[in-house]
Amino acid sequence: MTPTAIGLVAGTLTSIAAIPQVIKTLKTRHVRDISVWQPVLLAFGVALWMMYGVLINDLPLILANIIPLVCNIFLTGMKIRYSNDDL
Amino acid sequence: MTPTAIGLVAGTLTSIAAIPQVIKTLKTRHVRDISVWQPVLLAFGVALWMMYGVLINDLPLILANIIPLVCNIFLTGMKIRYSNDDL
Repeated sequence: MTPTAIGLVAGTLTSIAAIPQVIKTLKTRHVRDISVWQPVLLAFGVALWMMYGVLINDLPLILANIIPLVCNIFLTGMKIRYSNDDL
Repeated sequence: MTPTAIGLVAGTLTSIAAIPQVIKTLKTRHVRDISVWQPVLLAFGVALWMMYGVLINDLPLILANIIPLVCNIFLTGMKIRYSNDDL
């Protein structure tokens, strides 16, 4: 495998990593065991990665962070929304 | 803020994001609400990012992925280890 191919697989895996957690939380509405700080830190972090991508005109960096941004904002919202039902 | 400073803050946030989840899971030993696929995909993804960093000789890329790799391997292990106690 070329370095570029390895980088593309790496980027794909880290981009889609939050999707299974979003699906699980949507289905169960149970959030007790999830730390709110992981999706909060990831949402801010990937938003800044996107901003960095815009500033240096790097399209892959912008695109790779769209899915994680949406997923982690959504996870943060679900953690807050469902926490009251799930003590 | 310069683009480089924004990139450094972004990298710091995404590097440390899994630490609060590791601490929470270590304390509670409750893993019911966590999808095993998130730490599995992130562990493989950041391992490949590190490999990519080695192949293109990019030290920041290697260093930025050490903490996430350790955290996500550890989270995967705890999810598997504690799942039997936590149904």
